Amino acid sequence: MRIVALAGGIGGARFLRGLLAAVGPQDEITVIGNTGDDIHLYGLKVCPDLDTVMYTLGGGIHEEQGWGRADETWSIKAEMKEYGVGPEWFGLGDRDFATHLVRSQMLTAGYSLSQVTEALCVRWKPGVRLLPMSDDRVETHVRITDEQGTRAVHFQEYWVRLHAAVDAEAIIPVGADTAKPAPGVLEAIAEADVILFPPSNPVVSIGTILAVPGIREAVAAAPAPVVGLSPIIGGAPVRGMADKVLAAVGVEATAEAVALNYGSELIDGWLVDSADEAAVAVVEAAGIACRAVPLLMTDVETTAEMARAALALAEQVRA
Amino acid sequence: MRIVALAGGIGGARFLRGLLAAVGPQDEITVIGNTGDDIHLYGLKVCPDLDTVMYTLGGGIHEEQGWGRADETWSIKAEMKEYGVGPEWFGLGDRDFATHLVRSQMLTAGYSLSQVTEALCVRWKPGVRLLPMSDDRVETHVRITDEQGTRAVHFQEYWVRLHAAVDAEAIIPVGADTAKPAPGVLEAIAEADVILFPPSNPVVSIGTILAVPGIREAVAAAPAPVVGLSPIIGGAPVRGMADKVLAAVGVEATAEAVALNYGSELIDGWLVDSADEAAVAVVEAAGIACRAVPLLMTDVETTAEMARAALALAEQVRA
Repeated sequence: MRIVALAGGIGGARFLRGLLAAVGPQDEITVIGNTGDDIHLYGLKVCPDLDTVMYTLGGGIHEEQGWGRADETWSIKAEMKEYGVGPEWFGLGDRDFATHLVRSQMLTAGYSLSQVTEALCVRWKPGVRLLPMSDDRVETHVRITDEQGTRAVHFQEYWVRLHAAVDAEAIIPVGADTAKPAPGVLEAIAEADVILFPPSNPVVSIGTILAVPGIREAVAAAPAPVVGLSPIIGGAPVRGMADKVLAAVGVEATAEAVALNYGSELIDGWLVDSADEAAVAVVEAAGIACRAVPLLMTDVETTAEMARAALALAEQVRA
Repeated sequence: MRIVALAGGIGGARFLRGLLAAVGPQDEITVIGNTGDDIHLYGLKVCPDLDTVMYTLGGGIHEEQGWGRADETWSIKAEMKEYGVGPEWFGLGDRDFATHLVRSQMLTAGYSLSQVTEALCVRWKPGVRLLPMSDDRVETHVRITDEQGTRAVHFQEYWVRLHAAVDAEAIIPVGADTAKPAPGVLEAIAEADVILFPPSNPVVSIGTILAVPGIREAVAAAPAPVVGLSPIIGGAPVRGMADKVLAAVGVEATAEAVALNYGSELIDGWLVDSADEAAVAVVEAAGIACRAVPLLMTDVETTAEMARAALALAEQVRA
């Protein structure tokens, strides 16, 4: 079975680990990773979501934290502080820096982000084919208003530095309108047997991937069933601050509102948490098959069970 | 007193520490640093000699090693090995990487190497004005013949990877012929009260600085006395493998041969080690004032004594 999953960072990566545990060795998983949260720091290209997927599936992730490397050291960060060079609010450990150095050196040498990602995965062996959504630069910005007035800040600044404490007025995926899907992305979607939306952020992760011209259309036109898992449980994000960016696009932070925002032209099935049983009827009324199952990714086996439920729902909507 | 010193890496840096201990607070030291051993690694500009001077005088050097940072960590090097990205033979620690990241980011932003060096020194406060010999790229290459045939390798590859075990057939300071002295270099030489050649490598350190068009001429024309300290004691380099590169330029590895190679048109005074007492008459016969004093830089006070001897000899030749 050929499975395509659109993935953001921590939530997407943890779901994929469960998915890998749920499928057989003959199944092929292609992950289309969000690159809208990419940022240039210290002259290097940093791809947080791609790296979180790569490190998580490759066994290098800092488990408790969910991002960054296990057994990390922080010498460079300490030195940057001594040099007075920021940003101080973004945490790049020394091991992580090595990835950004290798990536940046290859990009400067003329390789595409797809090629670089493939090269990095030679080491990490994530067990999936990891494709960036695009080789073109896309950076999500967030419009906010604070004591400095109304302005757009990089998503990472909004998320990591400001902790989404200020209202997001608009989400702007800068560069997305002219970006092209990376090689293999549209083909993978067209040839997929199942397409999954993990419980990633529907606005700044899945939403950004879908904002690359051609990808939303390809998903909508794909013969494969498309099944998503709600990142919202009981009216709040499981982790992160998805409610803040959902508000910016006028979507309520509920399991059903997120499903309806994707819409039946895009998704065929939707899983909500058992706590959101009441959402099932609302979602189904909109023409989207819906089931309520436990959606907390407490460990790999629980997450594998979620993946099985998603694949089972895909089979039901296919039939 | 305005003192100008031409300096390479470890030997130069240690001498400068002694010089700083020997002079008073009203004395101004300008160091013209060799950049011929600069190398681009992992997409970053690495300036080993400038950094060795900066770290040594700024209190950040790894004392026993003589290069690199104290309390260093090596996470990036370990990661690069996992990624299969070299060169493995060059030791860049994590703290050191931070310097190269800041430098490279500033260079990419359009600052000159002089400006970057000045910015880095804001942190390190080396107590001297540190100028790169040139803002233009100069990289010393070494012609060798081995089982792969005759070829030129980067000086760092010759020195660090091959440990100078192969004969150097020629020393080629690539780019030196079109390089311009960095801003302030010629002025500092012209306005100096004393010019010193520390016991740095006469070929790949001092020699490369002098190879930048205008610098040799400025030193020769300077009104100030020029005094050098022999890096050769008893027919062998005190440290490093200076004999290998001296052979490449047809100069014997003796205290007197190095002095005569500089020549009386360049230097006015020369210090040899007490072990080389016999060299004094030979050097003086060539019109260069010469004294034999202890030249082993065993600690800062011993080195300060060497600096005092050099300054005293400068006063003698001036009179």
